[in-house]
Amino acid sequence: MARINDHYLKLSRGYLFPEIARRVAAFTEQHPEAELIRMGIGDVTEPLPEACRVAMMKAVDDQGRHNTFHGYGPAAGYAWLREAIAEHDFKLRGCDIDADEVFISHGCKGDCGHLLDILASGDAAHGGNVVAVTDPVYPVYVDTNVMAGATGPADEHGEYPGLVYLRCTAENGFVPAIPGQKADLIYLCSPNNPTGAVIDRAALKRWVDYANAHGSILLFDAAYESYINDDAGDDIPHSVYEIEGARTCAIEFRSFSKRAGFTGTRCGYTVIPKALVGRDAVGRPVGLHGLWQRHQSTKNSTVSYIVQRGAEAVYTEAGRAQCDGLVRFYMENARLMRAALTAQGFTCFGGEHAPYLWVQTPGGLSSWAFFDRLLAESHIIATPGSGFGRSGEGYFRLSAFNARATVLEAMERLSTLAVA
Amino acid sequence: MARINDHYLKLSRGYLFPEIARRVAAFTEQHPEAELIRMGIGDVTEPLPEACRVAMMKAVDDQGRHNTFHGYGPAAGYAWLREAIAEHDFKLRGCDIDADEVFISHGCKGDCGHLLDILASGDAAHGGNVVAVTDPVYPVYVDTNVMAGATGPADEHGEYPGLVYLRCTAENGFVPAIPGQKADLIYLCSPNNPTGAVIDRAALKRWVDYANAHGSILLFDAAYESYINDDAGDDIPHSVYEIEGARTCAIEFRSFSKRAGFTGTRCGYTVIPKALVGRDAVGRPVGLHGLWQRHQSTKNSTVSYIVQRGAEAVYTEAGRAQCDGLVRFYMENARLMRAALTAQGFTCFGGEHAPYLWVQTPGGLSSWAFFDRLLAESHIIATPGSGFGRSGEGYFRLSAFNARATVLEAMERLSTLAVA
Repeated sequence: MARINDHYLKLSRGYLFPEIARRVAAFTEQHPEAELIRMGIGDVTEPLPEACRVAMMKAVDDQGRHNTFHGYGPAAGYAWLREAIAEHDFKLRGCDIDADEVFISHGCKGDCGHLLDILASGDAAHGGNVVAVTDPVYPVYVDTNVMAGATGPADEHGEYPGLVYLRCTAENGFVPAIPGQKADLIYLCSPNNPTGAVIDRAALKRWVDYANAHGSILLFDAAYESYINDDAGDDIPHSVYEIEGARTCAIEFRSFSKRAGFTGTRCGYTVIPKALVGRDAVGRPVGLHGLWQRHQSTKNSTVSYIVQRGAEAVYTEAGRAQCDGLVRFYMENARLMRAALTAQGFTCFGGEHAPYLWVQTPGGLSSWAFFDRLLAESHIIATPGSGFGRSGEGYFRLSAFNARATVLEAMERLSTLAVA
Repeated sequence: MARINDHYLKLSRGYLFPEIARRVAAFTEQHPEAELIRMGIGDVTEPLPEACRVAMMKAVDDQGRHNTFHGYGPAAGYAWLREAIAEHDFKLRGCDIDADEVFISHGCKGDCGHLLDILASGDAAHGGNVVAVTDPVYPVYVDTNVMAGATGPADEHGEYPGLVYLRCTAENGFVPAIPGQKADLIYLCSPNNPTGAVIDRAALKRWVDYANAHGSILLFDAAYESYINDDAGDDIPHSVYEIEGARTCAIEFRSFSKRAGFTGTRCGYTVIPKALVGRDAVGRPVGLHGLWQRHQSTKNSTVSYIVQRGAEAVYTEAGRAQCDGLVRFYMENARLMRAALTAQGFTCFGGEHAPYLWVQTPGGLSSWAFFDRLLAESHIIATPGSGFGRSGEGYFRLSAFNARATVLEAMERLSTLAVA
């Protein structure tokens, strides 16, 4: 009798987005004439940069000729892409990362989840790791750990016993503080989804020091690093490897999704330094780089040659300029949104180094109550903050990924909403 | 202190291909002038079909315009691709498979491995599944189960206690017999890599009946189904779902890699019927379709829109004709190879419904001894059968994925090799 992974049954039922869809459908049925504006979705809207398209056209053509045809590629990705990444994203920022420490992936989400395969599963009482996540949090970090057995079933708040929740609130600037208890794996996301907060150099150094002191591993999600505004100074690291000591305690996830409009084209990468070790059952150090290499050769299908050529073009002069243009476009949306909301009396966070605004609901409304009001009065769909965790209650998330005209129309509609 | 997955340490060190590379390097150093022919690699050599390239060119272009740009796609793949697959690969063969039972993937290998995530991990004594594999075997089935803790450390033959090995030999036509003991998960690959053997309708029906009787799951790898020669009659099923009862006991893996030359372009799919259940810890049935949907939405990055458009073109009239042409080309290689080897006195299996020939070594030589001789005398690189498992000893695998001129040259060289 084939047995399933019972841990899947602990997962709460992906409440957030289905519930949004349910409420929107109910509203649309009653008001079929309403023109809804979706401000909740973290998906890009602008076309793929021309440099990437030209490179992929050529790559498709390559696949049509005997002498340029590419079959199975290397498990960790093509050397030319790994080298471009190491050079531009790390060496030019002074980070000591080699091309063979870069593993090309289909995107952050998959790697975040699959990475747990090389780490001990189960809860801490049975040899597993103590896992710390922020609250609010990108749900993938939590759900993949539930699937791996790191937790008990969800409690009445939707939180899982066994996880350490690092509360991120307006009081601490939405930057998680070092916990009093030990944590073996710590997920950090900066710039943050959903809050838009960033971790500065000093705070990140404290995390690196903590991790090295405790043999912990930082899982640093930098999917939004290209949205950091360097004109504000160099106080915000783009990579965890800008911090001394990170090579022995940190894995970094990156994506071309938001930087180059690759959400539908799919490519990202994960960095695992050769100096990074975990411990086996008897406490001996084992390099994670070798374990991940083995995972990738055995369990992972490589990224399409065509897509890897598209990603390589991100690092050409034209590609860099076009990607910068995309980021500037979305961040101008964020600026317009933040200005309009602030003028309107809303208390806004984020939107300065991230394409997300994290906004307090007016009048102490719950996230869902304000969601309903925004939908009914302004025909705007936001994301209720409580969907990202307990500390998200009383907030909503707005995304700057939209056409300019849509953003302006949304802000126009909001201007008639009574806030006080 | 972060703990690793100790099961990875049980893996033998990917002996086969590194050892081939070592011996080839040593030979090349001594004989730098030798023109080696690689007949060991299961990677395609012919260009991608024009229909797929045209579709991908258009898809790249789509990504360049606001009104045709595609961001995040559905977790299980686009409906248009799933529908084309359900129609052409299943309904037209009389199989009761719906589009929403088809999950688009990056390829068989990844899905074979990741599928274990929704099943109980650990060995059978601790709530895990009893896993049966054939011998010889595609190593991914074994290694991914070792990683999931289904086995003990490898024994002196490289076999893992805890696995049930189904011996496939010339005596049973390389088709595994139903085991005397229970097995919860059973990997079947037909047409087979490496032996080229196929499971006929009657034999597959016995497996389906066994699985339904015991609540087992068949993991049916049909990556090479397009190589089945239907002119030989309809006795060899292309899909496990051609067998009555398979919807309640089988998962099927498919790939465009060998059928459409997608080894570097990357796309495949996995079928999980809604009628298929596993059991939870207290014996209740749980649908695997829902668990896999949850796995895919949480842990999997979707396949590129561009690549999915390329795969869709496989089902157009032009695409089908071009893919058929590829298969005919490689199978003509196989026919030429089989004729030449047989004329030469070799005992050959496979090569009739699969692009692989499974050949007995002459004079009772071990697989590695003959590998060395073939390299030294004919400058041909084969794959030693023993690398696929104990029952592969005394065999070698030759691949028909090569240019015609290369195949002819290889057979010419072999004709001077003394076999008796």
